[in-house]
Amino acid sequence: MVFTHTPPAIAGPCTSETSSASAICALSRSSGRPVPSCLSRVPVFSQLRPEEVHLLHSVMRPRHSSKGEVIFREGDRSDTLYVLSRGVVKLTKLADNGKEHILRLLFPGDFFGQFSLLQEKPHYANASTADEADICRIHRADFLEVLRRSPDTAARFMSALSSQLEEADSWASVLTLLEAERRLAKMLLYFRQKTDPSANEFKLPVSKKELAGVIGATPETLSRKLGQLADAGIVSVSRRVIRIRKEAELRRLAGED
Amino acid sequence: MVFTHTPPAIAGPCTSETSSASAICALSRSSGRPVPSCLSRVPVFSQLRPEEVHLLHSVMRPRHSSKGEVIFREGDRSDTLYVLSRGVVKLTKLADNGKEHILRLLFPGDFFGQFSLLQEKPHYANASTADEADICRIHRADFLEVLRRSPDTAARFMSALSSQLEEADSWASVLTLLEAERRLAKMLLYFRQKTDPSANEFKLPVSKKELAGVIGATPETLSRKLGQLADAGIVSVSRRVIRIRKEAELRRLAGED
Repeated sequence: MVFTHTPPAIAGPCTSETSSASAICALSRSSGRPVPSCLSRVPVFSQLRPEEVHLLHSVMRPRHSSKGEVIFREGDRSDTLYVLSRGVVKLTKLADNGKEHILRLLFPGDFFGQFSLLQEKPHYANASTADEADICRIHRADFLEVLRRSPDTAARFMSALSSQLEEADSWASVLTLLEAERRLAKMLLYFRQKTDPSANEFKLPVSKKELAGVIGATPETLSRKLGQLADAGIVSVSRRVIRIRKEAELRRLAGED
Repeated sequence: MVFTHTPPAIAGPCTSETSSASAICALSRSSGRPVPSCLSRVPVFSQLRPEEVHLLHSVMRPRHSSKGEVIFREGDRSDTLYVLSRGVVKLTKLADNGKEHILRLLFPGDFFGQFSLLQEKPHYANASTADEADICRIHRADFLEVLRRSPDTAARFMSALSSQLEEADSWASVLTLLEAERRLAKMLLYFRQKTDPSANEFKLPVSKKELAGVIGATPETLSRKLGQLADAGIVSVSRRVIRIRKEAELRRLAGED
């Protein structure tokens, strides 16, 4: 199995019993802002001390984004760290043929934009929302100040970056599989795990055409392979909703048994 | 162009004029150990203050590794940060068919092993040397102590991790290209850039069979495509040594013109 990485435990907003989460929730409630609970939903901030929570809360700017909104473009510079609280964000790159292809997807709890922020270089990819999303923003100076004040937070950020690196390696690892069917099976299992590991049904986070690009197949091949999975009763497909009917069989196709 | 990332400027051992590098060199000379100048060769340590250099130097254990040496295995745990000072390291994973495939290659200045170290989880890949290598090791406790004492070093580590993430994304981005010829052209230009950007000749860091795995092609396809490049006078190939003869043409094939 390639994607062995279990998704981080994301506490629901204002349900956790830890002191720092309580502090976040107290602040969220008291601020009167439409706060998408950036801090409580994001694992990297899950063990902050109350004073760090206060510090971060005061510098985070939550924002709702509609579907297809561009967060930043390849070649732009920005001095913001983005933390995804709800929704899916696509990291894409303009391919040589002028088409956009997806480098990787980001799910709730992931952060992005750190490349331009930390290296003070232009972004190497575009980031846009695949659907409605809540994204929190932290300005560079505030972010660096938090790191300076809290070595533990810095260590957690490193750990989270290291996790993203594992995900990127796993993603690449899927792409070197020679059979498109195996790549598709792996990616379906991955999307289910990222969406809701306990459910058998999930909505594809991207369009089928984009999914074809993700697994390095033509849209025709994707459509044929998906049809074959449906004909064999392994999944059922209704527009972008996928229901896994024979999980053991799908895992076998993904080479995970 | 996918691999836009220029390789970090790596100072030759004991040639730099910066105060921290001088301190490193003074220490290297005085210690009497066969030190492969871990600190002076590795960008992440390039701007340390003298006291940080002293601290790190006292906790780094350099070691020479022969070709094919296993540094760690998938599933193992370790509490060591590895810094590659010379040579090439392969990050590999056992594929479902029992064969090993390369996730990514690491070049001098890269560090690895941080996943197990930071997350206290088993390694998700194997690391082994592709050739003779010098690798420096830092123990977890010492590494965390350096981060705690020096927020600047922590920020540089984050920045370096962020760079590795960009490389992994770029690697995946090459793999989604539909044409094997384009993937090969990109990878040859990438290897040249990582080996010596100013030279036209370089040795493949991995065997041709492994290169086939890297670009998601069969060995037969790789051999045919490499033969076509040679027949067209774009490169010449002598065992693992590649000479780029028509760079503009190779860049065009890679879609980089």
